[in-house]
Amino acid sequence: MNEMFEAVAENIKDLLHSKKWAKLKIILEDMNEQDIAELFMELEERDLTLIYRLLPKELAAEVFVNMEPEYQEALIRAFSDSELREVLDELYVDDAVDIIEEMPATLVKRILKHTDPEMRKSINEILRYPEDSAGSIMTTEYVDLKRSMTVSDAFTRIRRTGVDKETIYTCYVTDSKRKLKGVVTAKELLLSDEGDLIRDIMEPNVISVSTREDKEVVADLFQKYDFLALPVVDGEERLVGIVTVDDAIDVLQEEMTEDIEKMAAITPTDKPYLKMSVFENYKKRIPWLMLLMVSATFTEKIINHFEGALTACVALTAFIPMLTGTCGNCGSQSSATIIRGMSLGDIQFKDTFKVIAKEMMIAFACGFTLACVNFVKLMIFDDVGVFVALAVSVTMLMAVVFAKVVGSILPVLAKKIGFDPAVMSSPFISTIVDAVTLLIYFTIASAILKL
Amino acid sequence: MNEMFEAVAENIKDLLHSKKWAKLKIILEDMNEQDIAELFMELEERDLTLIYRLLPKELAAEVFVNMEPEYQEALIRAFSDSELREVLDELYVDDAVDIIEEMPATLVKRILKHTDPEMRKSINEILRYPEDSAGSIMTTEYVDLKRSMTVSDAFTRIRRTGVDKETIYTCYVTDSKRKLKGVVTAKELLLSDEGDLIRDIMEPNVISVSTREDKEVVADLFQKYDFLALPVVDGEERLVGIVTVDDAIDVLQEEMTEDIEKMAAITPTDKPYLKMSVFENYKKRIPWLMLLMVSATFTEKIINHFEGALTACVALTAFIPMLTGTCGNCGSQSSATIIRGMSLGDIQFKDTFKVIAKEMMIAFACGFTLACVNFVKLMIFDDVGVFVALAVSVTMLMAVVFAKVVGSILPVLAKKIGFDPAVMSSPFISTIVDAVTLLIYFTIASAILKL
Repeated sequence: MNEMFEAVAENIKDLLHSKKWAKLKIILEDMNEQDIAELFMELEERDLTLIYRLLPKELAAEVFVNMEPEYQEALIRAFSDSELREVLDELYVDDAVDIIEEMPATLVKRILKHTDPEMRKSINEILRYPEDSAGSIMTTEYVDLKRSMTVSDAFTRIRRTGVDKETIYTCYVTDSKRKLKGVVTAKELLLSDEGDLIRDIMEPNVISVSTREDKEVVADLFQKYDFLALPVVDGEERLVGIVTVDDAIDVLQEEMTEDIEKMAAITPTDKPYLKMSVFENYKKRIPWLMLLMVSATFTEKIINHFEGALTACVALTAFIPMLTGTCGNCGSQSSATIIRGMSLGDIQFKDTFKVIAKEMMIAFACGFTLACVNFVKLMIFDDVGVFVALAVSVTMLMAVVFAKVVGSILPVLAKKIGFDPAVMSSPFISTIVDAVTLLIYFTIASAILKL
Repeated sequence: MNEMFEAVAENIKDLLHSKKWAKLKIILEDMNEQDIAELFMELEERDLTLIYRLLPKELAAEVFVNMEPEYQEALIRAFSDSELREVLDELYVDDAVDIIEEMPATLVKRILKHTDPEMRKSINEILRYPEDSAGSIMTTEYVDLKRSMTVSDAFTRIRRTGVDKETIYTCYVTDSKRKLKGVVTAKELLLSDEGDLIRDIMEPNVISVSTREDKEVVADLFQKYDFLALPVVDGEERLVGIVTVDDAIDVLQEEMTEDIEKMAAITPTDKPYLKMSVFENYKKRIPWLMLLMVSATFTEKIINHFEGALTACVALTAFIPMLTGTCGNCGSQSSATIIRGMSLGDIQFKDTFKVIAKEMMIAFACGFTLACVNFVKLMIFDDVGVFVALAVSVTMLMAVVFAKVVGSILPVLAKKIGFDPAVMSSPFISTIVDAVTLLIYFTIASAILKL
C-alpha cells in the first residue's frame, strides 16, 4: 500500500511539472483527503498553492484540515479573501479552533474576520475553555431533537441540518432551556416506527461531561462505554457541545506519547519529533538530565564514605554497575507496570496495599533467583572469594526488593498528591535505587568482609 | 461520579441481601451495561448468578459481554441450556469469539453446541485467523447493499436486518460474487433522495484490509482516516467482515501497554496486573532481568581490566554511578523518542540519517552543558583535582553523544530487521551504554592522569 502511494505521488509530481492540470484534477478527485494532504505536504510551497486550487471546494477544505499547521499557514497566506472564506465555510467548528490555535496572531485576526458571525461566536466560545478540557476539544455542531417530535419529524430535522453536523448518528434531546434530557441514536430512529415519539424511544439516562472535565477522562469514557459521541454540558446542565470518537482517539494517542516521554524524563510536547528544532529538543531534555545528574551526587558521597572499604578490597568496585543496573531495571519494571495499570484504570488507590504486597512477593522471587545465579556465576566464572560473592548476592536480594517496592509505591503516591504517576518512572526510581543499592552493598560488604 | 457509583453499588448490595428483587430489577434496568458489569464483578459468585437472572434478556447479554472471563465462566457454568442459548442468541459474532477464546475446552464445546448453525459457522471462521490479524478481531455482521438498489431499498434492508448488525452507519456494496464494490454511509443515505441509486451515491474507492493484516496496522488506519468501520476482505477481494472503531481503540490501548512493557523489559501479556498471580508476573520479568544481569558482566571485565588505574586513583570510583546513570538517561530519552515517533508513523526508515544527525546535535548540546556543569561542580564542591574533574567531564561529553546515537539507531535497526523497536529500549541501551561509558572513562582517565 505504501509503495502504491509512492507511485501515485511520483505520477502526480510529474503531471504537476508538465502542467497537465485537467488530468491532475481527475486523479485528485478520486483520492481521499488524508492521502492528498500527505502528498501535498511533500511539495514545495509554490507547487502546493498551485495544485491546491485544483481541488473541488468541499474536498479542498477536508484536505486543508488534514495538513500540518505550517502548510495551513502557507496556504492561508496565499489565499485571496474569497478563497479563505470558502475554506472556512466548510470547516467544522472544532477543526477551525484547532487551526486557529496554531496560527500567528495576525492570521488569526484575518481568519476570524472572514468566518460567518455564528461560527465566530462558537469559535470564541471554545477558545475560552482551558487547554486539556472537554470544552476545548468539543464541537458545537450536533443534532438536537425535542421530546415531542416524532421519528419522522426527527428525520426531517436531520435531513435539513445534518450536512453541517459532525455526526448525525447520536442525536441529543434537549428541552426549551437547552437542558440535556435524553439521547437517541440514528440506529434506534431507523428501527422505530415513523410515528413513535422521541420521548418514548430516547434513553433518558445520559452520560455527559462538564466543559471543565479533563480531556483524558473524556477519552477514557469513550473506551469504557464504546461511544461514538459524548455530550458536553455547562454548569447549568445545558448542552453546549459534543466530543466525537475520532477526537477521543487523538487524545488517547497524545496521552500515550506524553506518558512515554515523562517515563523517559522528557518534558512532553505535542509537536512531532522531526518538526522540532535541535534547540527545542534540547530544552525538553536538559532540565531532567541536569536534575538527575546532580541527584547522583548522593552516590558519590556514599562511595567516598566507604573509600576505606574499597581500598581494602578493590574487587568490590567491579560489581557496582551490575548491581545498580539490575536493581534499576527491577524498579523500572515495577514502576512501568503500576503507571500503566493506573492509566488504564486497572489499579486504583484502594489497591495500594495489594499492589505493594504483590510487588514484594515478586521482588523476593526475582531477587532470590538473581542472587543465586549471581552467586554461582561469581564462584565459578569470576573466581572471586566466597565472601565477596556472598556480599554481592545478598545485596542483590535486598536491593531488588527495595527497588521493586519503591518502584511501585512512588507512582501511587505521586498520583495521590496530584501529580501524573508517569513522572515517577525509571530515571527517577533508578537515581534513588542507585544510592540505596550502594549503601546496602557497602554496609553488607563491610560486615561480611570485616573491612 | 466514582462516589456516585460506589453509593449505587452499596444500595444494590443491600437490596440483594434483603432479597428485594422487584426493586433491584427496576434499578438495574435503568443502568447501562458497563456499570452493571463492573458492579456484578464485585459480588460473590452465588450472588452474581442470582442477580444476573433479574436482567431483561437483551441487557443480560450486553452485561455478559462486559464482564471479565472468569465471571463469564462462572455464569456459563451456572446457566441452564436454555439460558445459555438466550445469551448466545444476543451476542455479536466478534464478542462470542472473544469469549470462546478465553474459555476452557469443555465450556467451548457446550457454547458451540448451543449457538445457532449460522453463527457457529462464522465463529469457526474467525477462530481460524491467526492471533493479532484483522480476521481475528472482525465481526461478520455488517450491512451489505447492492449497486442496483435505491436509497429507499437500502433503508428497507437496514430496517429489516439492522437490529443484528454491529453498525449500520457504514454500509458496504458488494456484487453477486461478494466482491467489495463500494461504501456508503447512513449519513449519505439520509441526505440523498429516496429514488437515488446506490451505484450513484456510493464511494467506489474503498480502503480495506486483508484478513491477514496485522491488527496494529488496522488500528493505525482508523486513526489516520477517522473511520467508524473498516472492511476486511479475503484473498479474492471478497468482503468477509468489518472491524468497528471500538475494537480499534482496544487494539490501540493493548499495543500501547505492550510497548510500555517492552520498554521496561517485561514480556507483554494482555492480562490486567491485579488478575495475574505472583508467579505469572515473575515469569514475565525474570528472563529479561537475568539476560541484562549477565550482560553486565562486560562492565565487570572492564573495571577489572583497569584495576591498576583504580587502585592508583580511588577517587575515580565515586563517579561511576553518576556517569553511567546520566548516560543511561540520555540513551533512554533518545530511544523513547524514536520508538514513539516510529509507532506514530512520524519517523520512517528513510528518516534514519536525519534522525541520527539531529540526535548527534542534541547530544553535543546536552553533553556539553552537562560536562561544563559537572566540571564546575567537581572543582568547587567536590574539591577533586583538576585532572580528575577533566577526565570525568570529557567522559561525560563523549559518552552522552555515544548514548544518544546508540539510543536512536538501535530502535530503527530493530524495526528494519523485523523486530518491534520497543525492545531496543532503555534497559538494553543502558547495558550497552554502561560498558562503553566505563571504557571511555578509564581510557581518558588513564591518559589524562598518566596512570
